[in-house]
Amino acid sequence: MKKYLKVDPWLIIEDNFNPDNHRSSESIFSIGNGQFGQRANFEEDYSGKTLQGTYVAGVYYPDKTKVGWWKNGYPEYFAKVLNSTNFTGIKVKIDGESLDLSKCEVLSFTRVLNMKEGTLSRDFVAEMSSGKQVQVSACRFLSMAKPETGVISYSIKPLNFDAEIEFTPYLDGNVVNQDANWDEVFWKQIKHEVDGNEAYLQTQTKKTEFDVANGMFVKSYLDNAEINITLENSSKEGFVSATYKQKISKNSELKILKYISVLSSLNHSRESILSDAKKVVREAAAEGYDKMLADHKQKWASIWEHSDIIIEGDAEAQQGIRFNIFHLNQTYTGEDERLNVGPKGFTGEKYGGASYWDTEAYCIPFFLATAPPRVSKNLLLYRYKQLDKAIENGQKLGFTDGAALFPMVTMNGEECHNEWEITFEEIHRNGAMSYAIYNYVLHTGDEGYLVDYGLEVLIALSRFWAQRVNFSEEKKKYVILGVTGPNEYENNVNNNWYTNKIAQWTLKYTLEAVIKVKKANQQKYSALIQRLKLDENKEYKFWNEIISNMYLPEREDGIFLQQDGYMDKEQLTVDKLDPKHRPINQKWSWDRILRSVFIKQADVLQGIYFFENEFSNETIEKNFDFYEARTVHESSLSPCVHVVLASKLQRMDKAYELYLRTSRLDIDDYNHEVHEGLHITSMAGTYMAIIEGFAGKRVSNGKLVLNPQIPEKWTSFTFKILFRGSQLRIEFKGGVTNIENESEVPATIILKGKEYRIGGNDKINIKI
Amino acid sequence: MKKYLKVDPWLIIEDNFNPDNHRSSESIFSIGNGQFGQRANFEEDYSGKTLQGTYVAGVYYPDKTKVGWWKNGYPEYFAKVLNSTNFTGIKVKIDGESLDLSKCEVLSFTRVLNMKEGTLSRDFVAEMSSGKQVQVSACRFLSMAKPETGVISYSIKPLNFDAEIEFTPYLDGNVVNQDANWDEVFWKQIKHEVDGNEAYLQTQTKKTEFDVANGMFVKSYLDNAEINITLENSSKEGFVSATYKQKISKNSELKILKYISVLSSLNHSRESILSDAKKVVREAAAEGYDKMLADHKQKWASIWEHSDIIIEGDAEAQQGIRFNIFHLNQTYTGEDERLNVGPKGFTGEKYGGASYWDTEAYCIPFFLATAPPRVSKNLLLYRYKQLDKAIENGQKLGFTDGAALFPMVTMNGEECHNEWEITFEEIHRNGAMSYAIYNYVLHTGDEGYLVDYGLEVLIALSRFWAQRVNFSEEKKKYVILGVTGPNEYENNVNNNWYTNKIAQWTLKYTLEAVIKVKKANQQKYSALIQRLKLDENKEYKFWNEIISNMYLPEREDGIFLQQDGYMDKEQLTVDKLDPKHRPINQKWSWDRILRSVFIKQADVLQGIYFFENEFSNETIEKNFDFYEARTVHESSLSPCVHVVLASKLQRMDKAYELYLRTSRLDIDDYNHEVHEGLHITSMAGTYMAIIEGFAGKRVSNGKLVLNPQIPEKWTSFTFKILFRGSQLRIEFKGGVTNIENESEVPATIILKGKEYRIGGNDKINIKI
Repeated sequence: MKKYLKVDPWLIIEDNFNPDNHRSSESIFSIGNGQFGQRANFEEDYSGKTLQGTYVAGVYYPDKTKVGWWKNGYPEYFAKVLNSTNFTGIKVKIDGESLDLSKCEVLSFTRVLNMKEGTLSRDFVAEMSSGKQVQVSACRFLSMAKPETGVISYSIKPLNFDAEIEFTPYLDGNVVNQDANWDEVFWKQIKHEVDGNEAYLQTQTKKTEFDVANGMFVKSYLDNAEINITLENSSKEGFVSATYKQKISKNSELKILKYISVLSSLNHSRESILSDAKKVVREAAAEGYDKMLADHKQKWASIWEHSDIIIEGDAEAQQGIRFNIFHLNQTYTGEDERLNVGPKGFTGEKYGGASYWDTEAYCIPFFLATAPPRVSKNLLLYRYKQLDKAIENGQKLGFTDGAALFPMVTMNGEECHNEWEITFEEIHRNGAMSYAIYNYVLHTGDEGYLVDYGLEVLIALSRFWAQRVNFSEEKKKYVILGVTGPNEYENNVNNNWYTNKIAQWTLKYTLEAVIKVKKANQQKYSALIQRLKLDENKEYKFWNEIISNMYLPEREDGIFLQQDGYMDKEQLTVDKLDPKHRPINQKWSWDRILRSVFIKQADVLQGIYFFENEFSNETIEKNFDFYEARTVHESSLSPCVHVVLASKLQRMDKAYELYLRTSRLDIDDYNHEVHEGLHITSMAGTYMAIIEGFAGKRVSNGKLVLNPQIPEKWTSFTFKILFRGSQLRIEFKGGVTNIENESEVPATIILKGKEYRIGGNDKINIKI
Repeated sequence: MKKYLKVDPWLIIEDNFNPDNHRSSESIFSIGNGQFGQRANFEEDYSGKTLQGTYVAGVYYPDKTKVGWWKNGYPEYFAKVLNSTNFTGIKVKIDGESLDLSKCEVLSFTRVLNMKEGTLSRDFVAEMSSGKQVQVSACRFLSMAKPETGVISYSIKPLNFDAEIEFTPYLDGNVVNQDANWDEVFWKQIKHEVDGNEAYLQTQTKKTEFDVANGMFVKSYLDNAEINITLENSSKEGFVSATYKQKISKNSELKILKYISVLSSLNHSRESILSDAKKVVREAAAEGYDKMLADHKQKWASIWEHSDIIIEGDAEAQQGIRFNIFHLNQTYTGEDERLNVGPKGFTGEKYGGASYWDTEAYCIPFFLATAPPRVSKNLLLYRYKQLDKAIENGQKLGFTDGAALFPMVTMNGEECHNEWEITFEEIHRNGAMSYAIYNYVLHTGDEGYLVDYGLEVLIALSRFWAQRVNFSEEKKKYVILGVTGPNEYENNVNNNWYTNKIAQWTLKYTLEAVIKVKKANQQKYSALIQRLKLDENKEYKFWNEIISNMYLPEREDGIFLQQDGYMDKEQLTVDKLDPKHRPINQKWSWDRILRSVFIKQADVLQGIYFFENEFSNETIEKNFDFYEARTVHESSLSPCVHVVLASKLQRMDKAYELYLRTSRLDIDDYNHEVHEGLHITSMAGTYMAIIEGFAGKRVSNGKLVLNPQIPEKWTSFTFKILFRGSQLRIEFKGGVTNIENESEVPATIILKGKEYRIGGNDKINIKI
């Protein structure tokens, strides 16, 4: 844990410069707009430790996989999130001396991420080796309103001398990934142009041939008045720059505005992309910084309008939850169904790939509650459009007849992960796909989705499960052998309760969906099953047979067993673990972890969370106590589910203790890994912990259900929720629930078991 | 399968040149002398497909491991068997044109491996593009008598022209491994010298800093009369050569003899190694080709004297078994306890490492029967000397108090393998270590080994097992969780019967050894347990408790279960497998293999083979039928154990069918992989199949037991066996067993249950 940032409700503040924290801050202060994003790298040169990172959504490279021993069925490559053209850079010379914070004395330093407005700013005073002092103010944002543009404002004031300032804004396409498997360069340079205050660069990924075009347009100001400057251009392979010098007197301020555009061939033709990049950046410059910023702030205001959570009485929790909501929104805006929520978003290159089951299991609930339905729908369509690839992926592993296995990690639908115990065995991810469809329909009521897309996916998933089970003559039940559950501290186990459960549930839900779709649109249904060559008699019958005879390991006392043989382990609990041995994933060899009783994230509880209506409170409590005692929470995705269940069991102390582990995971760098990037998808779990945990949000029979409890430390908490057309502001404070309907659409709410109706633009206050 | 070699009892013959077979032949025709060895690369340049390989025993490079995802406890490197200085090369120019079989028409071609004499020869007639025809005869051997030397004889006869021949013999240290993980060069060049007809090269491995020095000494002959030649020397970094030209008339023969020396810093100081290499090669040249060859042949004669098997009536089987015996002997001569039997010997670079459990489980029985006890003892001492490293290896995985886990693959005692399911989980290898000690003492009667070395190793192994088990409250038994058995088509299983069995047996045997050692030498025993800080009361008591309460999965009907949950699998048998799906390791994805019932090598049968006295014939038969039906034999180590058991069950048809799979595995390239090298260690399994299978050789109460059966196709078979000082020649022919004692030491034999005594230099003939 590392606590060096100031607490503030809307800001992340670093108020002194410690080079040891810099890479962590580069992650934490990252900005993005759904289309592209970047780490908080400095504009001026920095020779200290840094992880340079600029990322463009959907643009990846198929990095040849690196394995110890190839096994049949392994994917050929791992899709890497690509570090792409650095558009941020502005080299600065002061009287001929380079400005580099690694070589100056930094007299004061403040870096601020304004989460309300989506800006990153930095102010510092540096003393150069010559003794000359300069004050620098930089501010930048990547426009949410016009998501192919951004702007950087950078000003210098010499404090104790008259100065000649030299600015060299540039675009640098000669970038590499730190974690390239084979130290390859992933980019080809296609074109560059530079002319006066404008410069352009077009690069292309090798193999995948994505084109990215960047533009920059430079303006200059002396004491806030625009000045005409003459720029000296320079260019080489993959690099363009424009340099100018200006003499200014002490305490005057020279400012440069660098407008930038970032376009990708996902949205532009290869032929026109460079001229489009020109057009876009010129329009941005014409519009000007103030107008761009105003539009950008406006966009953020409307995002917060839907998604904010206000916590009174706990400043750290307030800052933590906003930090999570902020990053989720700048990673994914829901405008483009080809994109998804990468585990590190635009904050780092580790893991690679754009989508994991995290999206379906953790992010969908966030976007369902905080954004219009089209956002979640786009996430579902992402998988729908990759269904063919998921069927191919199944075929590679020996499945037939349209059985789909969605990839563990992917960019384009093809599997990228390449450890057999994950790629081949973490098939529970298929369950998250069906659950997400269920969850979407439950929250939005949009059953048309089942007709047009959902059922087709569900059938492919059910076909997978029907082939993946086998009948055990020993148990006289259907079993699922050789899997890795969400608890990745077990590999290749038999009858993982969670996997068996979600397989069985998927078959059930598919058959329910069949009935709904038949009823809603018999014609479309018939066309679908004909296209899928589905034999209703045979397949549905077999699915029902599996549903009725699925093996679900369970002890006599009602504890669901994580997998066959779990009770053969030495039954230790986490409280008995020597703290010196934690985290066990850093202290223990892998085999010791595998055969120990300890759990990375408790998948039995994940299943109980998904299907809680099927279980009595007594069963939930028993299993919660059993598994929480054995869970080390070494996955960032782990604690949130425990918070929801602990809240349901009215164990608010436990719930709050676990909540703390998730909410400030990155700001306080619990796991000493923030320098690699943020845990974007688990941020959605933090949201889930508050809304489904403390607020007890559920959906039942098309109605919103709330069962609020407030952590002792908090005086109130308030959140927004979008539910079937209503926009509600819900506040829990001092034993009162205040609900304000900020939309025209009336809503029905079940609060602590009692139903209330709130008209359009109405509000109610309920003592509870 | 690829059959292109002629059948002959003592020779391997390739009688036409097909470039597609060349890399396979380079493996099959490999020669070695225990200290170094090489693939059958051509002397002259060859621009076609070739795998160049020259290997020096014990010299390795720690190649940085390549893994998809690092896991705690993984070793840092994989010890690579190194391709080292090419000493074979002789560049040949004929009237200025390079001789290269890839660019000539090959009019005739014969390559012969003489297994009786240990020579590799080649005769061919080639027509150059100019139409000139030359006849070439080459022969070489690596001396078994003076194992730092070798000699190459290479002669050319122009058939249809007067020629100017240019020979450039050279030493080339600029070599690489094809399978280097990171394309690194593993060698540094230290020194080179070249002067007239002599040239020397000293190279050094990076990191491990092994020095290798090579010398060459050239003589030349015209029509068999030595001629004086003037050589033009050339040298560059890592390369030395000596060139001379000679005009000869049509049908004359120009011959070059290239004497070579190969020395390593395992046996020479770094400072003197180059001058030692000079001395050694000059002595060889002074001795001359004929004397060297005579000594070499003499050495091979004495090896065959101990180890030959003669089969009448089945020429292919005869050739096959001699091929296996030949390669085992040229891989390991037993002179040096720092060396071991690498899985590919000196025939290829794949797998790396020098020792696997193959040595203990398969090779020890071969060397016990065919070589003096010191050879097997040296193999045991190899592990004894690595005991400290094995204890360190245990510590890395969390074991304490002197518990040893021997590595899965090693060169120097450190673990090199890096897949968790093997490295961390194939702990059954520890069982092979204890079994080898038992086997050695059983065959040789050398109980002193237990006193001086064996017990110390056994205690370290028992301490490992005592920590590796845990008590299952569920089963009320000791269990072993998270292992991979010898059947590597299962990973991370619980209670692998074989592993549990051999763990239990190790504890038992250790306690038996304790009693023997105490009795033999109380003083040494006391010193040992004091040094090991062994608490007799506590540890022996706990070991006994585990022995009495070890869980061994077994069905009610007496089938031992390969592991927990094995009966949950779909119970298919191999005869039902679509041939299109075989071998499954090439056709199926890894997860499908893992969850299938099919077995790579049946470890339950391996356990029954080891401990057959504990089981009734009925139990053996039942388990044999059950597991043989499920075994795909996709390990080269698999069929031999089945042959032994099938023979015991008097199922000679089955035994012979399985024998065929092992005996000519490499000559006939069953698995299409011979181009990578030979399966050296499984060759010992072929020997085992005949001796322990068909001949029914066992040792009981210090006596040799035989229960011979002859495969229908054979008219007789004869083998040699060294047993407690007697050297026996045992022939089974036409219902008669002829035993000749070729030594002074009388022997007692139990043949089909009846005891016979054979005096020194006596013989008996028994109708049976």
